[in-house]
Amino acid sequence: MRSEAAFEAWRRRTIVPVSAAALLFLAAYAWPILDPALDRHWEDLCALVLWGSWALFACDYLTRFWLAPRRVAFVRRHLFDLAIVAVPFLRPLVLLQLASVLNIMNRRVSISMRGNVARYAAAASLLVVFCAALAVLDAERGAPEATITTFTDALWWSATTVTTVGYGDMYPVTAMGRLVAIGLFIAGIALLGVVTGTLASWFVERIDASQETAAATQAQVDALTIEVRALRAELRGDVPGTEPERSPPM
Amino acid sequence: MRSEAAFEAWRRRTIVPVSAAALLFLAAYAWPILDPALDRHWEDLCALVLWGSWALFACDYLTRFWLAPRRVAFVRRHLFDLAIVAVPFLRPLVLLQLASVLNIMNRRVSISMRGNVARYAAAASLLVVFCAALAVLDAERGAPEATITTFTDALWWSATTVTTVGYGDMYPVTAMGRLVAIGLFIAGIALLGVVTGTLASWFVERIDASQETAAATQAQVDALTIEVRALRAELRGDVPGTEPERSPPM
Amino acid sequence: MRSEAAFEAWRRRTIVPVSAAALLFLAAYAWPILDPALDRHWEDLCALVLWGSWALFACDYLTRFWLAPRRVAFVRRHLFDLAIVAVPFLRPLVLLQLASVLNIMNRRVSISMRGNVARYAAAASLLVVFCAALAVLDAERGAPEATITTFTDALWWSATTVTTVGYGDMYPVTAMGRLVAIGLFIAGIALLGVVTGTLASWFVERIDASQETAAATQAQVDALTIEVRALRAELRGDVPGTEPERSPPM
Amino acid sequence: MRSEAAFEAWRRRTIVPVSAAALLFLAAYAWPILDPALDRHWEDLCALVLWGSWALFACDYLTRFWLAPRRVAFVRRHLFDLAIVAVPFLRPLVLLQLASVLNIMNRRVSISMRGNVARYAAAASLLVVFCAALAVLDAERGAPEATITTFTDALWWSATTVTTVGYGDMYPVTAMGRLVAIGLFIAGIALLGVVTGTLASWFVERIDASQETAAATQAQVDALTIEVRALRAELRGDVPGTEPERSPPM
Repeated sequence: MRSEAAFEAWRRRTIVPVSAAALLFLAAYAWPILDPALDRHWEDLCALVLWGSWALFACDYLTRFWLAPRRVAFVRRHLFDLAIVAVPFLRPLVLLQLASVLNIMNRRVSISMRGNVARYAAAASLLVVFCAALAVLDAERGAPEATITTFTDALWWSATTVTTVGYGDMYPVTAMGRLVAIGLFIAGIALLGVVTGTLASWFVERIDASQETAAATQAQVDALTIEVRALRAELRGDVPGTEPERSPPM
Repeated sequence: MRSEAAFEAWRRRTIVPVSAAALLFLAAYAWPILDPALDRHWEDLCALVLWGSWALFACDYLTRFWLAPRRVAFVRRHLFDLAIVAVPFLRPLVLLQLASVLNIMNRRVSISMRGNVARYAAAASLLVVFCAALAVLDAERGAPEATITTFTDALWWSATTVTTVGYGDMYPVTAMGRLVAIGLFIAGIALLGVVTGTLASWFVERIDASQETAAATQAQVDALTIEVRALRAELRGDVPGTEPERSPPM
Repeated sequence: MRSEAAFEAWRRRTIVPVSAAALLFLAAYAWPILDPALDRHWEDLCALVLWGSWALFACDYLTRFWLAPRRVAFVRRHLFDLAIVAVPFLRPLVLLQLASVLNIMNRRVSISMRGNVARYAAAASLLVVFCAALAVLDAERGAPEATITTFTDALWWSATTVTTVGYGDMYPVTAMGRLVAIGLFIAGIALLGVVTGTLASWFVERIDASQETAAATQAQVDALTIEVRALRAELRGDVPGTEPERSPPM
Repeated sequence: MRSEAAFEAWRRRTIVPVSAAALLFLAAYAWPILDPALDRHWEDLCALVLWGSWALFACDYLTRFWLAPRRVAFVRRHLFDLAIVAVPFLRPLVLLQLASVLNIMNRRVSISMRGNVARYAAAASLLVVFCAALAVLDAERGAPEATITTFTDALWWSATTVTTVGYGDMYPVTAMGRLVAIGLFIAGIALLGVVTGTLASWFVERIDASQETAAATQAQVDALTIEVRALRAELRGDVPGTEPERSPPM
């Protein structure tokens, strides 16, 4: 039962339902925040969907834990997943579930090429900006001195923050809003790092490639040199009696 | 007709007229914004030039699409061009045409050397800062609580934003102005990435170069070693009886 | 006495007591700032602990200086330690002692793997943000126009600053607070550099790794070529009659 | 006369006087700004020193131009020097002379090692921050809505700007002050790039170094393999009559 094959099979088979649950989760999280005058009935439904998707994530985690060939390694490699499942289900902390969505994107895309890294970073940035706007709006809306009161404002604040521009025309004033902001700061630094790192590695690669070519040429010259030397040695060695012009080897 | 040669020939032959159209486009976009008291007559002329250059870009895109050997690859590689042509021709979205100017710069300069990358990044930054200032001024000028009301202010705001400094003495308040700002944020992060990436690759190259030298020396030592071994083998095997002038090589 | 072995032995034996002193130091520095209504009695105790840990750091430095095989190199490599010991023991400058804590972390963790660099940078950032918040609160609290008056505010300011977001809703107004802020700016740039550098080197390595594989393959082809050549040479040269005691070269 | 040797000799001989002139220049620029109530007499002296050092820079440039083996290459490589000499000698533009000081630092230090790059970047940053503070103070002091009115404020603004933090508690309002600020933005991006690039190249080098070691080991193994094969071939060749189990070489 605890085999690599069973683990992989489960992972592959659950990609679609878990992705769907993550999308439902996002929708159910966003709706009551975007429409504060939402009917009580619908609000309850959203809460239900949140609980349901959480339960699904938890089941998925526990099954994967059960099937994992090396459980300690599994836990260490999937700390985000653990946080999603273990965190008490308070309203604003639900945002941590966002990690599961990113995780699922991660699962679907193999990050082995630079193009994929860039595309993943762009998609993750958009998702993070959108969710941070939701969370900060949820946290700030009720505060007396809040500057972020509409979703448009929240999106604008989120964009100015993740790029580390920080005009200061809007900023969170509640503790929860500030926690969201700090998460966004970290995402912003990571974003900068990914953009710069990708470009830097691209430049380095281009230069390395041209150096590789040069090195290859040099190697061929070396090979030729060796050949010529061998030929000379042969010529010298073949006629042992005469001993002609034994010029010193280079 | 759909050959690589025909495609390249078209591309080469259209560089001059398309560049001219892009410059005309920029001028016709900038003029009514910089001079709000412009005569109605001239304003109409500018609109005509904008429409004309858009038509020219569209024709160029369609012809290149027609001539492209692999059309799907062409569309995927020229999404910016597609955006320019497909976008509804509303006033502030016209800025997307800016992409075509950058594109043309890109077409003229082969980005194969770091010096070119740096020069292209500098020119593109200046152009982006200038156009963002125009667009934000166009969007903000009429807004009741606007802080950006003159072109000097707009340029200053643009410079503080693209470098991610973001003082917050000026910031857009309209939705369109904020969209322009978000475009500028992205340009700013890209600029940071290019500067850092160029410098990093330069440092890496310098260090690699010195390591290359070391490696080359080592290679020569190896070559010498092989020579010496060969000589020893020769001396041992070739002339077993006489043993002549066994002078050390090198 | 002045041997590498004695120096290393001292270093290893003092890690635990010096770490403990650094922790005590941090606690004794933080307490009176976090609780301004602290009893006089306890405040004196904290001052005593600060003095005590300073004395311990000084003793440790002097002993290491004494044992160092090359004293000039030791002083040049441990300028931070020197600053800790030499700086006059004024209240806010005590923060420089923070360097000793970072130093001790540095001593415990060998920064030879990227994972370690990342973990060290994360821990150092948290520590720097925490201590800068303490120091700025200590400096600003009494100022007439101060915007940073509670520890929560100070932490928030510290986080916005180290990530170079800089909203400007809070900023230091005293000279000492600004000095702390400048230290934090430098830490922020270093943090950005470490994050970007780590990611860039990771990307470069991934690409290099794939190039290495290609190079290895090429090397094997080269080896094969050499073999084939050798075989040809053998077939051509090697059929004399006798072939005597050809002892292996090398 | 126009030889590489004469050019180098001049360059070497003028390092000390040109450095001294640059220091004098800085002092004469800073003094009237730092002490606005300066006596008329001293102010005239400062202006004289500024003119004098400018004349000296101009003479140095013209002589180097005269001695340069390839004059076009010289002009293209020393555009900063040209700007210093050619710019009309207006009050705030005098800051461009700063380039000459940086240039002289550059001339003294060979930037061939990463340690030197870091030290040069640190020194240049300090100098740029100091001079930008002077220039912005000079430009802003008289403006009606200025927020930067003392040298301490100017230094603080300069530090928040070069690190791209940009609180927005202070910002230039005059055109000249904003030009200085834009120069500082560019310096800030360059600083970020140098810090990140240095760290990234350091990380890459560490990883490359460990890969180099691995490659070297592999190379030695390869060499050994070749030796062993040669030995086998020899042994085979030694006993030509019997021909035992000639298994194909790898």
